Amino acid sequence: MDPILSKSAAADLVVAARLRRGLSWSDLAGEIGAPVVWTTAALLGQHPMTAEQAERVCRMLGLDETVAESLRRQPTRGTDPALLSDPTIYRFAEALAVYGPALKELIHEEFGDGIMSAINFRVGFARRPDPDGDRVVVTFDGKFLDYRW
Amino acid sequence: MDPILSKSAAADLVVAARLRRGLSWSDLAGEIGAPVVWTTAALLGQHPMTAEQAERVCRMLGLDETVAESLRRQPTRGTDPALLSDPTIYRFAEALAVYGPALKELIHEEFGDGIMSAINFRVGFARRPDPDGDRVVVTFDGKFLDYRW
Amino acid sequence: MDPILSKSAAADLVVAARLRRGLSWSDLAGEIGAPVVWTTAALLGQHPMTAEQAERVCRMLGLDETVAESLRRQPTRGTDPALLSDPTIYRFAEALAVYGPALKELIHEEFGDGIMSAINFRVGFARRPDPDGDRVVVTFDGKFLDYRW
Amino acid sequence: MDPILSKSAAADLVVAARLRRGLSWSDLAGEIGAPVVWTTAALLGQHPMTAEQAERVCRMLGLDETVAESLRRQPTRGTDPALLSDPTIYRFAEALAVYGPALKELIHEEFGDGIMSAINFRVGFARRPDPDGDRVVVTFDGKFLDYRW
Amino acid sequence: MDPILSKSAAADLVVAARLRRGLSWSDLAGEIGAPVVWTTAALLGQHPMTAEQAERVCRMLGLDETVAESLRRQPTRGTDPALLSDPTIYRFAEALAVYGPALKELIHEEFGDGIMSAINFRVGFARRPDPDGDRVVVTFDGKFLDYRW
Amino acid sequence: MDPILSKSAAADLVVAARLRRGLSWSDLAGEIGAPVVWTTAALLGQHPMTAEQAERVCRMLGLDETVAESLRRQPTRGTDPALLSDPTIYRFAEALAVYGPALKELIHEEFGDGIMSAINFRVGFARRPDPDGDRVVVTFDGKFLDYRW
Amino acid sequence: MDPILSKSAAADLVVAARLRRGLSWSDLAGEIGAPVVWTTAALLGQHPMTAEQAERVCRMLGLDETVAESLRRQPTRGTDPALLSDPTIYRFAEALAVYGPALKELIHEEFGDGIMSAINFRVGFARRPDPDGDRVVVTFDGKFLDYRW
Amino acid sequence: MDPILSKSAAADLVVAARLRRGLSWSDLAGEIGAPVVWTTAALLGQHPMTAEQAERVCRMLGLDETVAESLRRQPTRGTDPALLSDPTIYRFAEALAVYGPALKELIHEEFGDGIMSAINFRVGFARRPDPDGDRVVVTFDGKFLDYRW
Amino acid sequence: MDPILSKSAAADLVVAARLRRGLSWSDLAGEIGAPVVWTTAALLGQHPMTAEQAERVCRMLGLDETVAESLRRQPTRGTDPALLSDPTIYRFAEALAVYGPALKELIHEEFGDGIMSAINFRVGFARRPDPDGDRVVVTFDGKFLDYRW
Amino acid sequence: MDPILSKSAAADLVVAARLRRGLSWSDLAGEIGAPVVWTTAALLGQHPMTAEQAERVCRMLGLDETVAESLRRQPTRGTDPALLSDPTIYRFAEALAVYGPALKELIHEEFGDGIMSAINFRVGFARRPDPDGDRVVVTFDGKFLDYRW
Repeated sequence: MDPILSKSAAADLVVAARLRRGLSWSDLAGEIGAPVVWTTAALLGQHPMTAEQAERVCRMLGLDETVAESLRRQPTRGTDPALLSDPTIYRFAEALAVYGPALKELIHEEFGDGIMSAINFRVGFARRPDPDGDRVVVTFDGKFLDYRW
Repeated sequence: MDPILSKSAAADLVVAARLRRGLSWSDLAGEIGAPVVWTTAALLGQHPMTAEQAERVCRMLGLDETVAESLRRQPTRGTDPALLSDPTIYRFAEALAVYGPALKELIHEEFGDGIMSAINFRVGFARRPDPDGDRVVVTFDGKFLDYRW
Repeated sequence: MDPILSKSAAADLVVAARLRRGLSWSDLAGEIGAPVVWTTAALLGQHPMTAEQAERVCRMLGLDETVAESLRRQPTRGTDPALLSDPTIYRFAEALAVYGPALKELIHEEFGDGIMSAINFRVGFARRPDPDGDRVVVTFDGKFLDYRW
Repeated sequence: MDPILSKSAAADLVVAARLRRGLSWSDLAGEIGAPVVWTTAALLGQHPMTAEQAERVCRMLGLDETVAESLRRQPTRGTDPALLSDPTIYRFAEALAVYGPALKELIHEEFGDGIMSAINFRVGFARRPDPDGDRVVVTFDGKFLDYRW
Repeated sequence: MDPILSKSAAADLVVAARLRRGLSWSDLAGEIGAPVVWTTAALLGQHPMTAEQAERVCRMLGLDETVAESLRRQPTRGTDPALLSDPTIYRFAEALAVYGPALKELIHEEFGDGIMSAINFRVGFARRPDPDGDRVVVTFDGKFLDYRW
Repeated sequence: MDPILSKSAAADLVVAARLRRGLSWSDLAGEIGAPVVWTTAALLGQHPMTAEQAERVCRMLGLDETVAESLRRQPTRGTDPALLSDPTIYRFAEALAVYGPALKELIHEEFGDGIMSAINFRVGFARRPDPDGDRVVVTFDGKFLDYRW
Repeated sequence: MDPILSKSAAADLVVAARLRRGLSWSDLAGEIGAPVVWTTAALLGQHPMTAEQAERVCRMLGLDETVAESLRRQPTRGTDPALLSDPTIYRFAEALAVYGPALKELIHEEFGDGIMSAINFRVGFARRPDPDGDRVVVTFDGKFLDYRW
Repeated sequence: MDPILSKSAAADLVVAARLRRGLSWSDLAGEIGAPVVWTTAALLGQHPMTAEQAERVCRMLGLDETVAESLRRQPTRGTDPALLSDPTIYRFAEALAVYGPALKELIHEEFGDGIMSAINFRVGFARRPDPDGDRVVVTFDGKFLDYRW
Repeated sequence: MDPILSKSAAADLVVAARLRRGLSWSDLAGEIGAPVVWTTAALLGQHPMTAEQAERVCRMLGLDETVAESLRRQPTRGTDPALLSDPTIYRFAEALAVYGPALKELIHEEFGDGIMSAINFRVGFARRPDPDGDRVVVTFDGKFLDYRW
Repeated sequence: MDPILSKSAAADLVVAARLRRGLSWSDLAGEIGAPVVWTTAALLGQHPMTAEQAERVCRMLGLDETVAESLRRQPTRGTDPALLSDPTIYRFAEALAVYGPALKELIHEEFGDGIMSAINFRVGFARRPDPDGDRVVVTFDGKFLDYRW
């Protein structure tokens, strides 16, 4: 009996198949009727898929049941810190280092003592045309949770 | 001749005066006509203020010229990593660990090889009413920069 | 204008006054009608107190308004990692290293994909008599939050 | 002669077999008549099993003697720190960072100078129904050990 | 279906083929009509190549389509910190530790609050003859980006 | 007898005096007839000044002999790693992570086995006008040293 | 009201007084009738003293009540990792790196699954004459605790 | 020609053979007439064995010449820091954190400026019966070496 | 086409062949007429060999062309920090921690502002007979390089 | 009663007095008849001085009894790792990273299993004239200690 294909090995196969078949992340998200950021994160190993989602995606990508089994599995979430220094990802970390304490102040001022949930949470991604150069717009949208004993 | 008051010492004085006078970050932002996330970050030491901005804020808070001089000074930006484990800030770091690689994939798919600028950049903060509990909505909005030799 | 007394400086004064006056943490919790773990954590700088709580505690301990002001202030939460190697605290970290992955498995099996909230959360502390030696019983009790997009 | 299958390789096989056969951790615990947290931790590699426990579990899961041999072996305990940042596990670490020093104070106040044992120790896991959302209840229950020269 | 050859595995094959065929980095850069620093970095895995660039380089080196596919792929950029202590690379890091704060001061004095872009950026490499020993001349040339909200 | 004023305390006084008197780094470099990058680095504590240089700079800035004594002293060189994450400095570190291995390859190809000296070394700083936005041009120029037993 | 003198500040005063009065650690241990390793560790801040022990030691050393109060206080135990690289302490750490896994094997072989307690524990220190050079003999003597659910 | 089997691979084979044949570490030590702590450490890869020792041990365990060759090889000593957090080993590290500075003081008081050698050194392991629970007794016995220029 | 054998894999083969053939490092150094420290370092992967050196060494050791190709290749220099805690290597690191700042002072006093080159540099190794025990004598001999702009 | 002046504070006073009085490290070593590397290290806080050495040095430097008391005290040895990246000190660390494993091989080949003592140890420092540029020659000379149980 074999262990389940690891989430990162499954992600490598998904990425390769996606490129070879010329499919976009949006195509994959459309296939399963889920938001594109959620779908991309799930295929990279950060969310478990339902059996149906995994099956449809694997059929579209020409991947077999071992990949689908891995996609269904509950993940251990997180990213290797080494990858966070990739320049495209690092700019988000830099923004957090510059604006994190300000966001904390504003959350407390507006909502009181508590946090923005990262679990009851969604992330939006959009391109906004701009004559000075189009813009990446990423929205973090989480339920406020107050410290409650 | 004395050294300039450090940015963090100035921030401590701003925070104390703000609480004692009962002023909100929005009040301070309104006084200088600047966005509230920018103003909060600047007063916490992450952006230099103009002479007029610094003077108006210090007058409103009852702080003297040594604070204003510090607020005008060019900062060394960043946050002590120890503070990033405060739960209110940490949720943003966790979101980045879960969604960072997905955002990288989507930026490249939509825009090509490049990054979201963290310099030509603004951060929005809003409260969105929701019957299941109001939500914190934070928007990162940066110009796309393509790798260009 | 002076900055606010830091949370850790206030905690040092609380601890000293408590010992000199011979008051227990339970006495202090009783005075403000709050749970003892919450009260202890708050006085050590991990939760903000209401104005009335801070005033009553400071009166009981013979501490002045600068301490009360600090106790009311919104904290940056967390503990210096060096303190986590104190043997009394370390045993909890060791238990987490041994049982953390098992707890993750059981949460997912019982509740699905999500977490135990550390915000909508309470901690119980009790002594349980046992003929083989009394036992420390600590209960973590947090609302389940499911990953919800 | 081959080395013994590593504890983590055995755990991967257990997890895969468990999912494929549709068995819960409770089913496995029931089979060997042991508490579910202990059983889960042991199967993930944190406790040695007796020969009989290992044999029964492997029979139920359809795994062979090489897995049983690994399950019987004395473990080196602990968890890769990278896994501790998985959100479901991290909330326990966050609770420790917020409440650890308070628990230390209360242990010393109630019991004197000493620790809660993490060896003579058990962990309870339960779901508590709550109209505002069911709760995860985890109990750490360890014998008090006083510093004794 | 196989995963795509990793960027580092492709780089190892490029380096081996280059040495065995006696080709210089300049030869490879010339073949694709691109700057030599850019070409070297791309072949070491730091930039994606176009399909034509990848094909020409692989033909010149006698490498097959799996390498070309890898060279075309979007990279995760960065270098293992262990490699940064190689003496030839470390001298650049040392120069940054000695001159970094001075460069920051001069950028702010000359341009105002902002940064040198590392994206709209090129690196030059030259040998400058000198009677006291020839010199390595490396030029960092990036567009100034001002902090702009 | 007092210890010598630390290099960082002297740098703080230099920076404050420079801003209050409205002098540029170039003004200070001009006063002592030294290159501007060298002068800025020396005043920030990375190079010892001659007695005459220290005296002239302190006279221009209105600083006393204790500062001059500190500026003459042999430094321990380097920068607190925390400062290297300031965005303006970080872009140089990022460039090194992206291009460091390529520069190593090119140095070896052109010069053989050895390094660019960071001691027999100078750094140039210039602004280059460009219709698409002016550019920061930084030149690292060091003598090649071959590994020689 | 002042905070309690920190344990490390009290230890500095004890060490200074001990040297100036020419008292040995054994003299101090003799005064309070306690083992010398325990006494030394307690005076360096690792164990709380009883009121009588603290008073007798402080009288012998000519130190006042503020030191005695600190010596009575419950410590946070542990040593700054930087001090562990002092060569005299480091040799113990090196011995642990070389023999730690062997001791683990032997504890399990002899006692079963469990640990040597570091709480119900004593440390002996002796000089053993030897014609080839006298020897330092340090004994760790702790109660065996078996893993017991 | 193959590289020599690594010390850790050899140790894995020794551990497996020992368990399968039901031999104790003492049996192995007896076979070669060496102390049991030394023998265990050597078989785990921390000391080189003589050709005769390696041969006798491998014969007893049914292991071949490739293991014997590895056991004879000069080791690079030390333990992966991750293993030092295993609870059974960690208690020794904790004891060192609590008593290390006290042992340093006592070594200097008794012997002068110097160290306990970890090279001219032996470790004893014993079980001491005790009505309150048997005890683990570990003795570190090293030659004193004085700092001698 | 295969990648080049890594430097560390080649070193493992060299070490194994050396032991099996009973050749000393001096024998190998003698064969190529190079200093023994240089030769040993080169064979462990820290210096590139000439084609002739690599060929002669491989012939003497019975290793094939793939090893020789690896030995000729330009290395990335440095040692895994984990290996630096081997006791035999660590003593050099400890000596540097104890004497490093003193050597810096003496270099500056004798030569002015600059460094000992680690590139134009050689290391000597010798055994010096001594009636109290023979001594290891290691000499670092590097050209002084003055900071020169 | 005051604590003893710390070793690093004493070193700062020694360094300042030495510069102001124009004395070299050799002058100070000559005054006490001790080797110059030893004397410099001792005055920087790495070795205890005898009462007479401390008194003579302090008289020569015009420093008072509090400095002499500190110089006599037993040190905790070692250097802040941040200082080890100063370029003048770093070159020694780099040499160790490049040649450390080779020195280990040669020590074992020449002497057997053991180490060069860093305690029965001396360091020599010399300038060797050379027409191509004078050289820094540093000699590490330590007694060989064989692993001896």
